[in-house]
Amino acid sequence: MQYKHNFNPTISDEDVFAEIIKEKEEIGYYKLPFQDTTLFKEYAKTVKQSNIVVIGIGGSTLGTYAIYKFLKHSRKLEKKLLFLETTDPIDIQSKIENIDLEDTLFIVISKSGTTVETVAIFKYINSLIKCDKHNTVVVTEKDSKLNAFAQANAMKTFEIPKNVGGRFSVFSAVGLLPLAIVGIDIDELLKGARKTSEDFFGKKEFYSRILKKARFLVEYKYSFNINVVFSYSSRLEGFNKWYIQLWGESLGKVDINSTRQGLTPIGIIGPIDQHSFLQLIIEGRRDKTVTVIKVENFDNNLKIPDVKLEGLEELDYLNNIAFSDLINKQADATIESINSVNDIPCDVITIDGVRESAIAALMYEYELLTSLVGKFMYVNTYNQPGVESGKIILKKKLKKSDNLS
Amino acid sequence: MQYKHNFNPTISDEDVFAEIIKEKEEIGYYKLPFQDTTLFKEYAKTVKQSNIVVIGIGGSTLGTYAIYKFLKHSRKLEKKLLFLETTDPIDIQSKIENIDLEDTLFIVISKSGTTVETVAIFKYINSLIKCDKHNTVVVTEKDSKLNAFAQANAMKTFEIPKNVGGRFSVFSAVGLLPLAIVGIDIDELLKGARKTSEDFFGKKEFYSRILKKARFLVEYKYSFNINVVFSYSSRLEGFNKWYIQLWGESLGKVDINSTRQGLTPIGIIGPIDQHSFLQLIIEGRRDKTVTVIKVENFDNNLKIPDVKLEGLEELDYLNNIAFSDLINKQADATIESINSVNDIPCDVITIDGVRESAIAALMYEYELLTSLVGKFMYVNTYNQPGVESGKIILKKKLKKSDNLS
Repeated sequence: MQYKHNFNPTISDEDVFAEIIKEKEEIGYYKLPFQDTTLFKEYAKTVKQSNIVVIGIGGSTLGTYAIYKFLKHSRKLEKKLLFLETTDPIDIQSKIENIDLEDTLFIVISKSGTTVETVAIFKYINSLIKCDKHNTVVVTEKDSKLNAFAQANAMKTFEIPKNVGGRFSVFSAVGLLPLAIVGIDIDELLKGARKTSEDFFGKKEFYSRILKKARFLVEYKYSFNINVVFSYSSRLEGFNKWYIQLWGESLGKVDINSTRQGLTPIGIIGPIDQHSFLQLIIEGRRDKTVTVIKVENFDNNLKIPDVKLEGLEELDYLNNIAFSDLINKQADATIESINSVNDIPCDVITIDGVRESAIAALMYEYELLTSLVGKFMYVNTYNQPGVESGKIILKKKLKKSDNLS
Repeated sequence: MQYKHNFNPTISDEDVFAEIIKEKEEIGYYKLPFQDTTLFKEYAKTVKQSNIVVIGIGGSTLGTYAIYKFLKHSRKLEKKLLFLETTDPIDIQSKIENIDLEDTLFIVISKSGTTVETVAIFKYINSLIKCDKHNTVVVTEKDSKLNAFAQANAMKTFEIPKNVGGRFSVFSAVGLLPLAIVGIDIDELLKGARKTSEDFFGKKEFYSRILKKARFLVEYKYSFNINVVFSYSSRLEGFNKWYIQLWGESLGKVDINSTRQGLTPIGIIGPIDQHSFLQLIIEGRRDKTVTVIKVENFDNNLKIPDVKLEGLEELDYLNNIAFSDLINKQADATIESINSVNDIPCDVITIDGVRESAIAALMYEYELLTSLVGKFMYVNTYNQPGVESGKIILKKKLKKSDNLS
């Protein structure tokens, strides 16, 4: 009798690290924190327009939005950043109505260069205002058709390296260009990402911490198929959305043994979702892990005043408490409440403050975590074959309607 | 030998319907579509302020936001509606900076009357501007402490009936008052909800359709513990959030046999999340059902112009297509792509248009579906014991810090 198998042994820590080191040479996002940002900063200085409109979808907008949303109220930004990212006509119209197109720079972002939504919206913009080298800049792959268009019109272009996937592209031109233009300190961003990279590749205890989490999530994937990120600040709403794409699109794959894999990401916001999703976490089925994200320092001293309201005296214990203290105590109460039931896996990430380096460090750590989980799952973390069939069907449908009209 | 058990047989269709008929007499939301709206409309006429700020959280805001977000760009609304619903200091500050407080009506909404976030924010507002009967109105339970406060200050109050839970309260004063004030046709809203109610209780085929879905979701709850709502319009972003609360907080419960139950709601938006979550649906584990929601008529004729872009000629098939047609074809392509893999349970809801009656009918159907699923699961759909422990812990933490300071 002969016997062969292709079962994968649980991969050892050393093997995973070796795989990541190997992959680091091929996969572009690992190198992004170490790039030179001069080109982006130089270009940013030349931009005169007050409105910056990014035309893009998915990986071309989510990371930029995450960082912008996190920082915009804590920085005095002189320019306004907007995203045209959907084909919903009411959304397009309502956003465009509120901006002065004559005072707008359009950044058209598409890795492939032929994203249907992006090209459709850009065509529409072209019917409203002449798009030329004075008001349009393009971010795409070197040999894409969008790049050819930009060249033909002498438009400034920035490159997305071939080996940087959309959902891992926030620290490439995709994110750095628009963020630099509106006045976010992109060097501080990269500093935060670089610190995480250096810690990960240089410090055993840092690497082991992330690896332990990745291993846990994969080994218990059948018990806990849902990973909730519970962010205690409305500033992190964009981060949650970005995490959902990163996690869902990277890990929802057929593995090398033809078995379907995937962990389902959920992003919720505290304290708002204490009044919504928390009930399901605390009393519902034990199919979720929870990561609570706290912001240590909001750099904000808004506080509940010493106001007495007749009839509501029982809530006077709230008086004189800073809102930043209240929200963090709400997070702590939620964590304590989750830990008290004992059977919900829960970890807590506390980021320093509402700063460039803090959000970048968090995002880069999630990129590394995603790569590790992908390794443990034996999937290709960086492709997305599952969305192609829909694109082909759409094209057929549209070409058909074109012939009919 | 004797043998007794408390196993529940699978409940029959007739029994479920009988239970719902019984519950209809006790649970308040069933009656809301049939109420008289004169009080709200009369009050709305008297409001002079341009800004309407709702202070509330969870069930006190999510339904109102869902309807407002759906309709606001398709109606010429004269007043602006804002929500102060979180203790995030940066969120509070950035919202307040942008409104003229002298020209603002505050609607303080809390069913219990002692919601920490709501009272904290209201106290803060009180330190910025005198809140009195001229600029503040209160929505709460009849005998709450917030009601006592309102009475003591001669403020106008509207009642939330005791038997209407927060997440089922959108068609009570909670939603109808602010929506009537900003100019949404609340009679049309109730007309939509009423139609669904009458169909459900009067037409076997309508009732059977919803019941079949509820039964499927519960009978396959271990295979498919995640229920994705994939809404093909950015207008439905608020609806998604409302659905997440309704579903999560109603069904995440310990059942009558002390077993943890719960189905996990996810809300995503098309086409944006085709570039994010769709990969996980198509290629990931088969642990999700998908409900696609389409809007048949956007009442909007924005179209992709007949613009040719040098180098991008291959996308000229997009020219002359209306965006509303494009987004609906994208939805159809996604549905076809999901159906082609054969093992993802998927249903499609198409709502007529961007109209009051359409969104209300959809929301009311989801309330009924939630009640049915709750029955099949043997849980109490209408309470939320799992969030109480966190509240007690928070109070202790805050009182402690109060003594220290």
